[in-house]
Amino acid sequence: MSTPLDMDAYRQSVESLKAQEAALRYDHDALLHMTEDEARANAIFTRLRDAEVQARWEKEGDLDNFAGMDFYGARQNGLGQHEPTLVWDAIHRMPKGALLHCHFDGTVDTRFLLEHARNTPNMAMKADRPLSSPEALWKATVEFLVLPSTQERAATSIYSNEYVAGTWVSFHTARETFPYPHPYLSEQYDQESKLPNYLFPSSGSASASKPNGHAAESATFDSGLSFDAFAHALMTLTPHSAAPAIVNSKQAWAKFQSTFGVIAGLIGYEPTLKAYTKELLRSHARDGISYTETRINFLTEFMVRADGTPNLNHEEWVRIFIEAVNEVKAETTDGSFVDAKIIYTTVRFVDNEKLRWYLEDCLTLKKKFPEWIVGFDLVGHEDPLLPLEVYIPELLRFQQRCKEEGVEIPFVFHAGETLEDGGDADLNLYDAVVLGTKRIGHGVSLARHPLLTDMVKERDICVEICPISNQILGYTASMSSHPSLLALLHRNVAVALSSDDPSIFENFGLSYDFYQLAISSKSTSLISLAVLARRSLKYSLVDEKTKATMLADFEKRWNAFLAWFLLEHGHVLQN
Amino acid sequence: MSTPLDMDAYRQSVESLKAQEAALRYDHDALLHMTEDEARANAIFTRLRDAEVQARWEKEGDLDNFAGMDFYGARQNGLGQHEPTLVWDAIHRMPKGALLHCHFDGTVDTRFLLEHARNTPNMAMKADRPLSSPEALWKATVEFLVLPSTQERAATSIYSNEYVAGTWVSFHTARETFPYPHPYLSEQYDQESKLPNYLFPSSGSASASKPNGHAAESATFDSGLSFDAFAHALMTLTPHSAAPAIVNSKQAWAKFQSTFGVIAGLIGYEPTLKAYTKELLRSHARDGISYTETRINFLTEFMVRADGTPNLNHEEWVRIFIEAVNEVKAETTDGSFVDAKIIYTTVRFVDNEKLRWYLEDCLTLKKKFPEWIVGFDLVGHEDPLLPLEVYIPELLRFQQRCKEEGVEIPFVFHAGETLEDGGDADLNLYDAVVLGTKRIGHGVSLARHPLLTDMVKERDICVEICPISNQILGYTASMSSHPSLLALLHRNVAVALSSDDPSIFENFGLSYDFYQLAISSKSTSLISLAVLARRSLKYSLVDEKTKATMLADFEKRWNAFLAWFLLEHGHVLQN
Repeated sequence: MSTPLDMDAYRQSVESLKAQEAALRYDHDALLHMTEDEARANAIFTRLRDAEVQARWEKEGDLDNFAGMDFYGARQNGLGQHEPTLVWDAIHRMPKGALLHCHFDGTVDTRFLLEHARNTPNMAMKADRPLSSPEALWKATVEFLVLPSTQERAATSIYSNEYVAGTWVSFHTARETFPYPHPYLSEQYDQESKLPNYLFPSSGSASASKPNGHAAESATFDSGLSFDAFAHALMTLTPHSAAPAIVNSKQAWAKFQSTFGVIAGLIGYEPTLKAYTKELLRSHARDGISYTETRINFLTEFMVRADGTPNLNHEEWVRIFIEAVNEVKAETTDGSFVDAKIIYTTVRFVDNEKLRWYLEDCLTLKKKFPEWIVGFDLVGHEDPLLPLEVYIPELLRFQQRCKEEGVEIPFVFHAGETLEDGGDADLNLYDAVVLGTKRIGHGVSLARHPLLTDMVKERDICVEICPISNQILGYTASMSSHPSLLALLHRNVAVALSSDDPSIFENFGLSYDFYQLAISSKSTSLISLAVLARRSLKYSLVDEKTKATMLADFEKRWNAFLAWFLLEHGHVLQN
Repeated sequence: MSTPLDMDAYRQSVESLKAQEAALRYDHDALLHMTEDEARANAIFTRLRDAEVQARWEKEGDLDNFAGMDFYGARQNGLGQHEPTLVWDAIHRMPKGALLHCHFDGTVDTRFLLEHARNTPNMAMKADRPLSSPEALWKATVEFLVLPSTQERAATSIYSNEYVAGTWVSFHTARETFPYPHPYLSEQYDQESKLPNYLFPSSGSASASKPNGHAAESATFDSGLSFDAFAHALMTLTPHSAAPAIVNSKQAWAKFQSTFGVIAGLIGYEPTLKAYTKELLRSHARDGISYTETRINFLTEFMVRADGTPNLNHEEWVRIFIEAVNEVKAETTDGSFVDAKIIYTTVRFVDNEKLRWYLEDCLTLKKKFPEWIVGFDLVGHEDPLLPLEVYIPELLRFQQRCKEEGVEIPFVFHAGETLEDGGDADLNLYDAVVLGTKRIGHGVSLARHPLLTDMVKERDICVEICPISNQILGYTASMSSHPSLLALLHRNVAVALSSDDPSIFENFGLSYDFYQLAISSKSTSLISLAVLARRSLKYSLVDEKTKATMLADFEKRWNAFLAWFLLEHGHVLQN
């Protein structure tokens, strides 16, 4: 094709190229077949979005903010705060289908766990050093655990120099005698309390979410609230004025990994576990997520029973999960919650012998709860931990064992959560594909592999991309510089936006990830977001019949959303 | 393909996939046809690189540094400093072919300009406010200019509150009476003086590069050196302890754009212009770059003559450039410098009428200096400035005019230097391709366009990727998270690594960009770097005969490098 010399021919060439490229994209068919209502809603949404970008993210002269900027910066600039913006509100209300990638212990607001700890008389706490100075707070490794009531707690204050490292003290005493006032009750934690109200039920337990409402009212120092703010900082990556700043992936991972150890003791207690599971489902339902596949890390063999004895096994744990799902199903009358399933996971540092134990454990659970265990994965920081390659013998044996036992447990591997070109974590993508993974967790480095990208598309493997997680953990500086998100979407590789560890990052639900994409990409429309929602259901691991029901249910909810949206914003097109 | 159940079949599947994918990459043919020496050197280089990554960038327990990290962080960790590391040294010594993307006024170390200013009696300085406090230094807009000796300078000190904004004062007086000691002679500037010595000639003018050697010797306050450090900070993006930190693309661009106004008055003076051009070529030759295509911004119609009159026109400017090139050619006996050409550019804020003037000016210069003007481009910050789309009528007319005049002036457009998906700057890629651009400047967003990526490859359009520039200007957080670099390389789209504005970023030459790629990508080998070097020559805009000579010359230099490398490091393989 030679360069055309007249304007008409020129314009035609450019428009034809743009059209050809748009036709390759994931949302092309949906855009081509919009209903009249969808077309109107789509045009309105784009107009609202462009206006919101101008008014909030790309304001003339504002050099500090930009559309799709880092999540905590965006939060500072009001993302998802008290007064929802029009676009945020619409995205929050729209049905978003399934959340396919979230780690069970990193999903429900940590304040929910703290509230339960406050109501757990036998909750204990320990640290690897006396918390005798503000500096020690940030250096210490802190753990919580419910102990049998008969087990003694040390009487020495954990804040005194006499505290013996590693001894258990009463959580309640520690909370009530917390000696450090501000800045541990920091401005960041204050901002957290401005989270959209719908993330917390308005009755009863809601108080957990508003400690600073109280703090603001009374200027006097409140040990309990300051302790809560400190504990919140231990369990989240949200920047905290008193804690060391995090500026790269290594630092983010170090902090990230430390949060799980703090959370473990709060969550791993029978009554909390059940309440937590129910809150997980309810909070997702409130955010328009009707189905969740959560990765449960079964590394720890036992949890703590209601009576404080630490011998609640995996089978009992799954039973608790099932009870919680069924109870939330029973209480849900508006169709906002449909179901939840478990992806069995263990961590990429176990050896092959131990892996075999977990795989057999997974098989056992699958046979006992065939509908509930829908996949297997290996999790953890891919860069430093063991590559899939090391586990091939056991993973192949597992596939054989599944055949023998007549069950199907698809692999749903994390792979390519890395920037290291040609490193072990990058090479995990090859193993994941050859092992027949049904989906890929993250795939940050996938778009750099032309052949694998084509294969992933051909084999209809869905990539669970967690953009806010990827940004916070240092794989991209912003939504729009993600090395694979837009590259895969524009090649029509199936992508399910996911939140990963929303309680630790505080990107609860899917609204934040959807919002950041919508606001930072002009080529993303309301219809595009609906395609993402439908696809998340399509790539879930339920049987085809259930899937068909979920998809039909989605269309009902989508139409109801459209009706609301047009009623609320229909006037925009008349202006 | 179903999942293989035995290990041998499994391994074969994975290895075959890896091989198929490797076969798509840019360096595949070269790796397939290595000479024996190349194979040895390649193996040694990889070993040295892996060791250097471990020892310097991925040290156990070091959470602050990582391979391919942000450039200024990497400089703090020793990148390219006094004692070159083995990998740095090898990369610096290897021939790197052509530098195809650098802006003329942002290329030679600003200390070279300062040294010339010190030797220019009529150099004047002004500011838009009195520089009467340390804070004012960073808020002020400062300009330099050579004035006719007859023109009066204000006697009031520019540091006094009485200074009238915008009046010219003597540069020399301002320098000698600079009242602010440290921290304006900052640790950053000290570090600059530790730049590898080969970036500066060791005789004569070298003193310009070592001001702090003196400063360190004498602990007394030196106004001149402090002033130089301040002026250096005005002209570079190098972080400076006293200047505001830059944390995103908007802030980086604001500072970046301000540097050109400071540089303009130092460079736009006939004697300096010629010396600067020669230093540009010499410094590139010292870094293994034998050919440069530099984009000259002809926005300003006139420069200042030796006698201080501001009427040196574009034709005279090009003559000075040619003289400089020929003089450096004549002085070069070791084959390290071969040639340099000009890409005519103006800025994306001119209107179509003004653009027509520049295009005709470009045509006039091309007809006068047919060998020297090799392309046309429009430059500037793509996101806020005008899209190519606006200029189509004039650009098409220009192509017609070139035909009429019987000359060829290919377009070499900046396009896609953006993260904005579907925004104007992103859409520039379509226009650039349809306009028949020979190369694309930046193309940061290109890899997200599957169709355009294929077309760019098919039409053999080279993408001038400037990874360190892209990182400093906020398009990627690190070398390895670049949205297009590895994605394009692995798809075998032609890429020419480029430095963009090395005097402003201080990524002088090509060694920094080559090093950061080599150190951060395990799939990049010495042979890969040689392919990049060869390609930079292949995609230059010289005639085929000259290109063949340059390529033959490269092979000679490459073989000499290999001989040196094997002599120096051959023992590594025997260990």
